[in-house]
Amino acid sequence: MNTEITVKSEKIFEGKIVNLRVDTVELENQKYAKREIVEHKSAACILAVNNDKILLVRQYRKAIEEFIYELPAGILNIAEEPQEAALRELEEETGYTAGKIKLIYEFYTSPGFSNEKVYLFEASDLVYKAVNFDEDECIETIEVTKDEAKKMIDTGRITDSKTLIGLLHWLYS
Amino acid sequence: MNTEITVKSEKIFEGKIVNLRVDTVELENQKYAKREIVEHKSAACILAVNNDKILLVRQYRKAIEEFIYELPAGILNIAEEPQEAALRELEEETGYTAGKIKLIYEFYTSPGFSNEKVYLFEASDLVYKAVNFDEDECIETIEVTKDEAKKMIDTGRITDSKTLIGLLHWLYS
Repeated sequence: MNTEITVKSEKIFEGKIVNLRVDTVELENQKYAKREIVEHKSAACILAVNNDKILLVRQYRKAIEEFIYELPAGILNIAEEPQEAALRELEEETGYTAGKIKLIYEFYTSPGFSNEKVYLFEASDLVYKAVNFDEDECIETIEVTKDEAKKMIDTGRITDSKTLIGLLHWLYS
Repeated sequence: MNTEITVKSEKIFEGKIVNLRVDTVELENQKYAKREIVEHKSAACILAVNNDKILLVRQYRKAIEEFIYELPAGILNIAEEPQEAALRELEEETGYTAGKIKLIYEFYTSPGFSNEKVYLFEASDLVYKAVNFDEDECIETIEVTKDEAKKMIDTGRITDSKTLIGLLHWLYS
């Protein structure tokens, strides 16, 4: 099986969060197809365990017009390592710093159309410092036990892919 | 906490797979922000269990320039129910039909910038019919045991979010 050779690449949009391009590719049967591709920076996400509870943040997501619960996460700054970004986002969104941290998964959120990659970390030895919110963010933090997390999943209240991955890992693996 | 009121919405691109728009929103502090939003149709994905093995498909994903293993999945056709789409994609991609199917999770792949929603089903009682590939798809199917799936996850070979969710559910919950 072959890769898809790019024969043309058209830039449609360059934004703050995403770029969009349309590639024309040659398939192995010598046919051509268009690929609409959303370029997105990598992100770091953190499963932070505090006294056997997980920190979740609740925020409004315009793309789906809903408030949802998610693990703390955010886009990597330029030249920032994933682990550094995970710790920074944890502190910005919840006020906690973590003494221990390790990478548990790396995955693409939607490789059919986007290159967004998430580095998911697990952290412990949390210490509360202070909350210094991002200007555009309005975030509420909750802490949930394993029973509460399981119930949130079972009742369909966890609707974010990275959060579902983190909680399934924490609960079961 | 308030929702973000749209004060302006600019359509940037309308494609076959994605649309892109930029909304200007009013935040609760009366500041304004831009939201770059990728509209994507909902998708159905299927965790198909055949003799205690899971069906995975391997295909090239242009957005990440890699071949990866994924659960069979695809975009819902117009007026198609998620379950119908899951069974159709299973048959198109692997040649199997399923006698039993149930919804296990609904989630957004990346709600920070996209409204793409995935309906994840678990299916069993599989019967092999025939493979009728989509024109632009070049797909290879493999069947993996629980030990093999666990090893693929532990060695970082499962890099697709919906597939990680399905396999973690199958292995552990």
